[in-house]
Amino acid sequence: MVVSSTANMLYFAGIPIQSFERFAGLMVPAAGDPVLILPALEEEKAKERSSVEDVRSYTDEQGPTKPLKSTLMELSLNRGSVGVESSLPFGFLSQISRAVPQTAIVDATEAVMELRLTKDADELAAMKKAGRIVETGILAGIGAIKVGATELEIGFEIERRIRELGGEKVPFNAVLAGRNAALPHGDSSETRVQRGDCVLMDVSATYKGYYADLTRTVFVGEVSIEHRKVYDTVLEAQSAAISAVKPGLVAGALDKKARRVIANAGYGKYFIHRTGHGLGLDVHEEPSITSSSSLVLKLGMTFTVEPGIYLAGKLGVRIEDDLVVTEDGVETIGKCDKELLVV
Amino acid sequence: MVVSSTANMLYFAGIPIQSFERFAGLMVPAAGDPVLILPALEEEKAKERSSVEDVRSYTDEQGPTKPLKSTLMELSLNRGSVGVESSLPFGFLSQISRAVPQTAIVDATEAVMELRLTKDADELAAMKKAGRIVETGILAGIGAIKVGATELEIGFEIERRIRELGGEKVPFNAVLAGRNAALPHGDSSETRVQRGDCVLMDVSATYKGYYADLTRTVFVGEVSIEHRKVYDTVLEAQSAAISAVKPGLVAGALDKKARRVIANAGYGKYFIHRTGHGLGLDVHEEPSITSSSSLVLKLGMTFTVEPGIYLAGKLGVRIEDDLVVTEDGVETIGKCDKELLVV
Repeated sequence: MVVSSTANMLYFAGIPIQSFERFAGLMVPAAGDPVLILPALEEEKAKERSSVEDVRSYTDEQGPTKPLKSTLMELSLNRGSVGVESSLPFGFLSQISRAVPQTAIVDATEAVMELRLTKDADELAAMKKAGRIVETGILAGIGAIKVGATELEIGFEIERRIRELGGEKVPFNAVLAGRNAALPHGDSSETRVQRGDCVLMDVSATYKGYYADLTRTVFVGEVSIEHRKVYDTVLEAQSAAISAVKPGLVAGALDKKARRVIANAGYGKYFIHRTGHGLGLDVHEEPSITSSSSLVLKLGMTFTVEPGIYLAGKLGVRIEDDLVVTEDGVETIGKCDKELLVV
Repeated sequence: MVVSSTANMLYFAGIPIQSFERFAGLMVPAAGDPVLILPALEEEKAKERSSVEDVRSYTDEQGPTKPLKSTLMELSLNRGSVGVESSLPFGFLSQISRAVPQTAIVDATEAVMELRLTKDADELAAMKKAGRIVETGILAGIGAIKVGATELEIGFEIERRIRELGGEKVPFNAVLAGRNAALPHGDSSETRVQRGDCVLMDVSATYKGYYADLTRTVFVGEVSIEHRKVYDTVLEAQSAAISAVKPGLVAGALDKKARRVIANAGYGKYFIHRTGHGLGLDVHEEPSITSSSSLVLKLGMTFTVEPGIYLAGKLGVRIEDDLVVTEDGVETIGKCDKELLVV
């Protein structure tokens, strides 16, 4: 197999690296030791941090073709098939194809994801720390909400607190006020908070490479009857899904639980995404919490539960927590109050 | 062609979107109007911001296979060949292959990049604003350098200033002190600044989606004779390359100019990366400023010039500016002082 994604390079080779322009990858033979191929400017980092001993580098002038080919041949990856990740860019795929044209290239994402699917104690400790960091960031954001503040200003306070607490990457930090909250993937803007707005905060950060991803929605000054109904429905949907979590349950059942609550309240067509996604070294990984998922939940699996209702032009409410499957059922990784809050 | 990368979706469809898990793409037929295929939760954003009129969405339950197939058939992309970008993930590539198995898939990255290679006035205005934002951020970082401050603390001051000035994404913000600066792609850490350290700050941010990417290296308290020699050599190499820029010159000549200065000073083997890279909607794009490049510089091309010297275990110095090719030769997009600075 050729491992190349950022998350898998961290998991298997122990180095943080982004292989988006210059090829970097771990060549894993069916038997024997793996070989790391890297751009020269990442070599020092690999020597300092990676447990992989066989590191081969190339300069920008040389390019990766030669070391890639000779390594694949040497590891006997030039016959049979070689697994790659579904995230592997077409350009790198072409380089591998050219290096070993007789080799079948197959998608081995699931085989690798299987290994990462349940988290051990060290991983859970990192995720819990990440959860506390993001949770404290959101509390700082709530503290900064006032009429006239911009979404970006509130987001800045969230990020400041996250950095102070040792958060590493902050891949997203969306503060969406009023009608902007109806865009599930909106970006913070100069929009100013107004009385009567909902303010949705969807924030992610990493600690030791592991992600937390939490969302809270609060209201400013007052909350209309409709807003309250939407909020209560989302919270009830989330609780229904969370309380159902236990080892042995099919992931799809969680989506159905949440979706049923929202449909019964008459908002079914406004819940336009799945109930959650796995979380770990990637911010979106397995298990996907979608109705059609037949994946069976196991001890140590970690994922989000984040139902939402989006009324275009008006408001959006989403409540998101990160969970780990335990023997007793479930533990919440990141937590802060979820009762309807008017600031 | 199927356009799917974040930068090209912004360039051609006008929407900021990351197609990393759920497929999002613009289907461009040889003749006729393009079609945007999106996950349902991005549909509102597209309707608000995109000039593409034909938008087709799918839910997580439905998946992209059906709309992808019917659209490719309808646009007659099911015969001949379809161009994709080299960044297209293997998983999405497989979906396209399955949808139109008779179609040859070819790398069309260069055809698209060609269009983005020279920047118009609006693009240059955004890049100049991004340059001013990053430059002011680095000045804030320099202001925060003192013995005992951590790399992350200094980085936080840089990011705070960038956000205040309207910087959007901050894809990297590396503050590397002392021996850490010898890692060209190192990450900021809790390492504390000591007297005699060099502090390298490599910072990037976007404005209206366009990147600036600047690096400055300063010294703390004192500077040794060797450090000064390294710094002067890098600065001279950078000046040699910048002053050579003009329309009609081959990009490779710039790398040779910078490399010659560093080699003549005896540091040739410590300059372990190319002299620069193109900059625009991607932080690394064409033209690549590498010795072997035969690309001819044209009016409106934008790129970095960033030679460096890295002495493992000791120090690293890099100086990076962003440039645009003008009729007269060259204009610097981001600028702040480059004279050796001891803080």
